[in-house]
Formats: sequence, structure tokens, C-alpha cells
Amino acid sequence: MSGRLAIIGLGPGNEAQVTPEASRAVAQATLFYGYKPYVDRLDLRPDQTRIASDNREELARAKEALEKAVEGHSVAVVSGGDPGVFAMAAAVCEAIESGPEAWKALDIEIVPGITAMLAVAARIGAPLGHDFCAISLSDNLKPWDLIELRLLAAAGAGFVVALYNPISKSRPWQLGRAFEALAAILPGTVPVIFGRAAGRPDERIEVCLLADAKPEMADMATCIIVGSTETRIIRRSDRPALVYTPRAATRPK
Amino acid sequence: MSGRLAIIGLGPGNEAQVTPEASRAVAQATLFYGYKPYVDRLDLRPDQTRIASDNREELARAKEALEKAVEGHSVAVVSGGDPGVFAMAAAVCEAIESGPEAWKALDIEIVPGITAMLAVAARIGAPLGHDFCAISLSDNLKPWDLIELRLLAAAGAGFVVALYNPISKSRPWQLGRAFEALAAILPGTVPVIFGRAAGRPDERIEVCLLADAKPEMADMATCIIVGSTETRIIRRSDRPALVYTPRAATRPK
Repeated sequence: MSGRLAIIGLGPGNEAQVTPEASRAVAQATLFYGYKPYVDRLDLRPDQTRIASDNREELARAKEALEKAVEGHSVAVVSGGDPGVFAMAAAVCEAIESGPEAWKALDIEIVPGITAMLAVAARIGAPLGHDFCAISLSDNLKPWDLIELRLLAAAGAGFVVALYNPISKSRPWQLGRAFEALAAILPGTVPVIFGRAAGRPDERIEVCLLADAKPEMADMATCIIVGSTETRIIRRSDRPALVYTPRAATRPK
Repeated sequence: MSGRLAIIGLGPGNEAQVTPEASRAVAQATLFYGYKPYVDRLDLRPDQTRIASDNREELARAKEALEKAVEGHSVAVVSGGDPGVFAMAAAVCEAIESGPEAWKALDIEIVPGITAMLAVAARIGAPLGHDFCAISLSDNLKPWDLIELRLLAAAGAGFVVALYNPISKSRPWQLGRAFEALAAILPGTVPVIFGRAAGRPDERIEVCLLADAKPEMADMATCIIVGSTETRIIRRSDRPALVYTPRAATRPK
């Protein structure tokens, strides 16, 4: 008997941003693994079961889900946003690579979702309208000096930079250091967007300049977009400002 | 009378990847502007009209859409994938910034979508599971040396690189030059994914090594993901290979 494993992206939290493909994949599974806030978003039937775990237990969660799938269950691993962006799809692949042969024989389906930076960008204009990159600020699985090297390489080459996992109780200083590193090579006038809970009732989208950006403006559910020197703010009298990065660019100074 | 303008992401082409939010926004609009293959995907009512244009007429299309919205129409500009990623949201913002005051007073709604790199990644594993960037290879609006500088900065710092707009009839040599630039600093064993029409009936997802990557493997509808030195291929006997980038990383050599 062969089970199956779906790795499903639930989008940033607005039900209207969950794709029909994701809803169908949820309907087909019976066992749901994931970080508690994500599995709690599921509206399950009596024959469906959620198994919540902490957000630092990704590999253990992936292994348990794979075991249950091999036993013949129809298993889903759920992520907020997109499962392939700093989320469960990589953890499941890691587990498969180092795990028993039976895990490699499983039917694996990955269902993409709207990742946080896209949802935040859509609420403010088009800050990702030109070349951009996404960096996780978590130094749990990579050294901080590598993160700083990447921030400098990306900003120095003119990329807009989306910061995931910017801050948490156990990682309180990293975001401040990231802003300092960026401020050393970018003008203080570069726009910075703090996007929290985009598309949800408790949404909070704030725009400031890099010189005024403070770590306290973010929490672990915030996605931050740091503009490039080309990124522009359009002030509008009766509407919120629009922030966008033009399609055209010149070589950075 | 005040009209409205929605900028809608239709996802990569699979109807099951169009969000309910996008479907609702399409239902509310009456005039649809966009590149022909995208407006052709819309299933419209008799009271809804599509106005298709060429893919190099983005700014003219944005201006016409804004004019119609100011006249009181309910206008939609549609993009494949996400409208904020190398697509119409930035073009509309550009038009608004330099246009008449009335355009700034419009109600603008941007609806995010599944962008190509996420859909391609989901079909092959988790190549974007670690820090990554997105670069448009089109040198219509930026100089080629800037593109090459960014490719080298990103790959050199260990980012996975997603290439949008890789090749077209009028831009035949750029992709080959990009592979050459990347091969100068990355080992030939780095995995490269060519993803075309992800999730559609004519989908074609191919994996090769950087040393074997050829421009002929792509067309203008292909999104290419070039791995980092950390990106891995999991061979499976009865299933397609999985390609993923581990969550953990060390400083690049």
C-alpha cells in the first residue's frame, strides 16, 4: 500500500488568496502536519486530523509526515505562504534524501502559494517590480556573517531585498544589524516597507526611509522589503502612498 | 464619477492556481487590458471587453487603462503570474507618477498571483528553499553589463538565481552569455531547472547541470532556476528527481 504526501502552501492568511489547487489538496488529505498557526487555519472534517508542532521542529515534523505516508495515509504538510520559500518543502526533501528508500518511492505533490513578499508588495504598489532577492535573517541554520555578506552583495548590486524571518525572541539583534549593514552602502532615503498580516483583518503595512527603520517595527510575522536606490514613493493626497521600483535601471553608482 | 483599476495576477496558467481573490476581481471589472496570451485566458461575460496589446507596450497599455478608469469604467490590467514581478504593476505605478493628478486619486487594487518561479519550483522540489533572487534577463530597459554584474554578485554570494524573460527573437544571445558568466564562478555541477508552462497540459520541466545548460532549452515562456553550490539532486528510481536547496548553508568557498 502506497500513501501520498502533499506539501501545501496556504498563502499569507487571507482565505481569498488560497488557490483552488490548495483547497483541493487539503480536501484530499486526512493527516495534517505543520506549525500550529498554519494547521489552525484549516477548516477540517471530522475524519481529518491536525498534528501541530513548534516552528523549530521542521525536520522532525517532515520525518513523521513521511512515515505516516509510507504507512498508507494521505498526509499533508502545510506552510503559510509558499511551501518552497523558507518553509517545509526543503525540510521534506532533506528528510527524503537521508531517509529510507521507501520515502523516495512516495508520491509527493507540492502546491505553491502566495508568498509573503508578493502579498506585501501588492498592498503597497510594486516594490518588487525590478530585480530582487529574498533572504532569511534567521541564523539558526547559517552563520550571521554569511547573511551580512549576502545583504551587502544584493544591495550593492542594486537588488531590492525582501527579508524573511526578520526577528524573534531568540534572535533579537539580527534585524538591527541588517539595517546597519544596509545603511552603510545604501542612502538613508531608500524606502523600507514593513508588511505584517497582509490581506488579513489585522494587516499593518508601514513605509519609512532606511534611515528611520527600527527593529521594533517588526515581529516574527513581518516581511520587510528594503528598496534599491531606484525605488520610489508616490505621495497621493487622499490615498496611501504607492511604492514601486521602475522596470528600467542604470548601473548603480 | 470615479472609476477603479485592478491589477490582477492570473498565475502561471493553471486555472486551479488562480486565487479566489483574482477571480472575484475579474468578475468585478468590465474592461480588460493586457498582453494577448493573458487576456485570452479570461472567460468573460458579454458585458466584459478585452483589449489585447503586444508585450513591449506596457507603458502605453497602463496609460490607456488609467484613462478609462478615470472616465468611470471598472478597469482591470491582467498579468500572468504575479503582477508585481516583472509585470504590469510597476508600469502602472510609473504612469501614475508622471501622469495627471486624477490618476493619483484612483482606487487602485493589486491582486497578487503565483509567480512562475514558485510554480516551477513546486514541480521539482524546493530549489528556492534557501536565499534566492529573481533577475530579468531582458536588456530592453537596463544595460547588459548591469545584468551580468547582478548575476555575478548573486551567484558569488550563494543565492539561487531565478531567470525571468530569458530569451526571445529580439534577444537571442543574452541567455548564453548569462550561462557563461555563471559558469565562470559556479561549478559545472550546479543544477539548472528549465520550467515551461508549469501546471499546464503542455508543461515541460527539465533538469540539467550548468555545464550542459544551453540557451536552446528555453523560450520566452520559460523560467530558469540556477542552483547554488548547495543545491542537490535526489535521484529516485520510479519517480522524477527532486531538486532542492537545503535550509542550512555555510559560507561559500
